[in-house]
Amino acid sequence: MQLLEERILRDGKVRDGNVLKVDNFLNHQMDIELFGEMAKEFYSLFHSDNVTKILTIEASGIGIACITAQVFGCPVIFAKKSKTKNIAGDVYTSKVESFTHGNTYDIIVSKEYLKAEDRVLIIDDFLANGAALSGLSDLVRDAGATLIGAGIAIEKAFQPGGDTLRSQGMHIESLARIKSMDGGIIQFC
Amino acid sequence: MQLLEERILRDGKVRDGNVLKVDNFLNHQMDIELFGEMAKEFYSLFHSDNVTKILTIEASGIGIACITAQVFGCPVIFAKKSKTKNIAGDVYTSKVESFTHGNTYDIIVSKEYLKAEDRVLIIDDFLANGAALSGLSDLVRDAGATLIGAGIAIEKAFQPGGDTLRSQGMHIESLARIKSMDGGIIQFC
Repeated sequence: MQLLEERILRDGKVRDGNVLKVDNFLNHQMDIELFGEMAKEFYSLFHSDNVTKILTIEASGIGIACITAQVFGCPVIFAKKSKTKNIAGDVYTSKVESFTHGNTYDIIVSKEYLKAEDRVLIIDDFLANGAALSGLSDLVRDAGATLIGAGIAIEKAFQPGGDTLRSQGMHIESLARIKSMDGGIIQFC
Repeated sequence: MQLLEERILRDGKVRDGNVLKVDNFLNHQMDIELFGEMAKEFYSLFHSDNVTKILTIEASGIGIACITAQVFGCPVIFAKKSKTKNIAGDVYTSKVESFTHGNTYDIIVSKEYLKAEDRVLIIDDFLANGAALSGLSDLVRDAGATLIGAGIAIEKAFQPGGDTLRSQGMHIESLARIKSMDGGIIQFC
């Protein structure tokens, strides 16, 4: 998506450790007009799939998910990150390993809001190693719901998450796919 | 706001310790159509104030803030909760005491995104003891920006936050104000 790629080139900052800082418009300050254009793009990619629910993960996926849900006319559920062990049987839970923070956390979704008849589109801001996306898809599977696919704002295509999950059959559409950030120069696929 | 009050009566659940569970439509699953109506209401209340930025706090404020920002045509910033001490000088920071979780955490906003010329509307899902709202308003003050006011989805008017902050001059508009939840019966002001 050209508009997003241009914005990444303009405002994105490459930091040590392959970190791409886009908190000017994506995950701290949020450019809602840009989100609206991204939402239309996701709709054009997934509108024929009869999506009944959009699933995302707190915190930075929520904004894009909500603006996208407006176009799809469906509710959003956001998975909560939890460091406490969930003993209650009323949630689906999955483990996510954070490469950025070097820890593992549980994500949970209430069983009330994810049902076998749901057709779920996952929306998130980043795809790199695929840990969060994989965890979210586990929740959908555990609910017996149908995973339509995943709409991602920025994919770091030089990290393995996208390839691995696509090879397992997941339909992933990323609006900007970064091939390389070597030497601080951002190159798209 | 009648639509929100009706929804609280229909789907809200009162739990021990004056907890109101509204995760069916507000802060786990999110009813984006309802958020759209709430956004219009916030716009009718604050549209003459030349809002340049909407400020909220992760995670459950983000959805309402984004849908509201669409109507106002401005960006959103969400304050991040941080348990690590921030030594960098590039953020505004404030302490928030959580009565629900019995702990204290820092909230931070990058100095890049909150400027003296900004006219800030705070949007959040709940107002009870006012700790989060007070912390957010501290960030606005520290930036030298103008605080227009706060738009809240649900105010627990039987807790002191709203009255205290209004008496300090803050313009707070809550779309549903709960007078009492005694015996599990929700009564609005």
